[in-house]
Amino acid sequence: MRSKTMNILFTCAGRRNYLLHYFRDALSGSGRVLAADSNKNAAAMIEADAAFLVPRVESPDYIPTLLTLCEQQKVGMLIALNDNELFILSEAKHRFRRIGTQVVVSSPGVIALAADKLATADFATELGIATPASYLHVDTALKAVEQGELCFPLFVKPRWGSASLGVECVNDIDELRWAWQLGLRRLPRNSLQPYAAREDGLLIQNALRGQEYGIDVVNDLEGRYQTTFVKRKLGMRSGETDQAVTENCPELVALGRRLGEALKHVGNLDCDVFMGAGKPCLLELNPRFGGGYPFSAAAGADVPSALIAWAKGKAPPLHWDAIRHNVMSSKCERIVSINRSATPVSEETPSVKSPYETTANNFATTPMALFR
Amino acid sequence: MRSKTMNILFTCAGRRNYLLHYFRDALSGSGRVLAADSNKNAAAMIEADAAFLVPRVESPDYIPTLLTLCEQQKVGMLIALNDNELFILSEAKHRFRRIGTQVVVSSPGVIALAADKLATADFATELGIATPASYLHVDTALKAVEQGELCFPLFVKPRWGSASLGVECVNDIDELRWAWQLGLRRLPRNSLQPYAAREDGLLIQNALRGQEYGIDVVNDLEGRYQTTFVKRKLGMRSGETDQAVTENCPELVALGRRLGEALKHVGNLDCDVFMGAGKPCLLELNPRFGGGYPFSAAAGADVPSALIAWAKGKAPPLHWDAIRHNVMSSKCERIVSINRSATPVSEETPSVKSPYETTANNFATTPMALFR
Repeated sequence: MRSKTMNILFTCAGRRNYLLHYFRDALSGSGRVLAADSNKNAAAMIEADAAFLVPRVESPDYIPTLLTLCEQQKVGMLIALNDNELFILSEAKHRFRRIGTQVVVSSPGVIALAADKLATADFATELGIATPASYLHVDTALKAVEQGELCFPLFVKPRWGSASLGVECVNDIDELRWAWQLGLRRLPRNSLQPYAAREDGLLIQNALRGQEYGIDVVNDLEGRYQTTFVKRKLGMRSGETDQAVTENCPELVALGRRLGEALKHVGNLDCDVFMGAGKPCLLELNPRFGGGYPFSAAAGADVPSALIAWAKGKAPPLHWDAIRHNVMSSKCERIVSINRSATPVSEETPSVKSPYETTANNFATTPMALFR
Repeated sequence: MRSKTMNILFTCAGRRNYLLHYFRDALSGSGRVLAADSNKNAAAMIEADAAFLVPRVESPDYIPTLLTLCEQQKVGMLIALNDNELFILSEAKHRFRRIGTQVVVSSPGVIALAADKLATADFATELGIATPASYLHVDTALKAVEQGELCFPLFVKPRWGSASLGVECVNDIDELRWAWQLGLRRLPRNSLQPYAAREDGLLIQNALRGQEYGIDVVNDLEGRYQTTFVKRKLGMRSGETDQAVTENCPELVALGRRLGEALKHVGNLDCDVFMGAGKPCLLELNPRFGGGYPFSAAAGADVPSALIAWAKGKAPPLHWDAIRHNVMSSKCERIVSINRSATPVSEETPSVKSPYETTANNFATTPMALFR
């Protein structure tokens, strides 16, 4: 018997084309893969079954536009990919639920905890999980250095930061002071969220030693722990994993279970962990599909099929969580052409964008279909 | 009549898989596409017809190993992709020539000029091309600010830098001082080349206004100017173009011609240019295939076919330089799996690497073939 069809919408689809392909494979014809982005040239827009230009996440029209879009397109499941939209989508989850759209997003509490590197560290400490020593002021960090409690190298980083932006590695007291001053001054300029520019928005943490790992901790749509995929990172590139190998590491699977059971997050949780002397130290939580998921998928993980099954109230397919160990993969670039014609695209761009920037009320009820 | 076959070797192949595909298409069966890298997991290693693990660029064995490899594999053309190997390959060009390998690399003078952002600015000024104001010391920059000759924002950057590493944008005098101190302190730590850590290795330049462009200036193997491809940048990601559209811009084609004729570089020259008030301002020169070439290729550029023809002493195919304007393309990620078996890769890694790290002499004559 054929399953009921389900359309899936990716918001802030960006350049995560591989996720579109994974979900299209999982649907195997029983639904469409849709992409929304505020940039009509985003690579994922080209490879979706239909693409929709929407306002930027910061716009008050973002949620209303997505609601209209989900209703019009009969979206059964919405997958949020950008850190900056997780909180507002989480708060609006019930409004989507009412029109039949399951938003795969954790509770506002989990999102807030993961977005705040200090709250993440406190949460880990409460669970008895090792985590970097964290200081909210340069003076307390310097005192800790003096008293021999803290050693260089240290990291100065935005407390609510993402993608390694604004992270400075410092090696002595002078560098710490300069990076601290520079970081404070830059916070208001580089912060997308107003709270991120607060006086206590800059953090000092000690550098972790050992091997870096990425783990995907998967919960079902009710926040019940399901499985953990472990990947040893072999190479990084601008804050994202570039090369990794899946590994059989019971300590990290156990850590994943503890995190998933304690957090009760929804769907995928991407975590950065260091292993030094056989003991895991938790650095960061991202309650969404992260840049490390493709390394799990390459080894056989099939979270999309599980999510689709759970959303339909069914059991996920057998072996969706059976990954092969020691599967090594690398990322590289692909080029996606948006047009190959000689149409004067440069003249078209402003007229396509302007309605959303100027007549927001109108736009809120009519998301722009780029193609279907 | 069938052309003579030619094998092509990419050094520091890294994750430039698309280039392998372009050259494979250009060869259309009349030669093999080979990749060399010091990382056996580099994505390009997987998609080459044969991959070779070689020492790191800094090793004294790098050139001898490549010479052996080129001789063994009958390499007709070597394409260097990494800034750090251009100079030594340029100096060794005649040694490769003697064994029948054409190294597509410019003269040491051109490489040195392009690697040094101050020399690049001086060269542009001599040609009457606008370029950022450049200061080698914070005091002279501050004096210029005081006298109203220089305005914030400014950039503090390594003079011999690459890929936006260590570049700091500063908005006032305090930030300039902190970033200067921090930058000076970091130079020795982050510099791959000893000269890059010199006292005059840190540069202050004014930020450019206007639209950013990338141009590919193509010369033949004798350094004679051939063509320029112009691309307006729409999005950047960690120092590399992520989205771009080809454009018909006579001013920038004229600039490309002037640069190509003055420099007499060999093959592709990737340039970063800003256009403000209809006047181009040159920021940077990269005398190699850059991250912007795929946007030219997506619009019809076929530099690989031209290079292969020139190396064979033939005329390049018709229309190799005819690109369509207004072709918009985006990059996104691809995952390449290095193995899908359950072999314990983690245990294999050290034993594969160790021979090169410990018995360099032996390695110099026996580059390791990973697969063929």
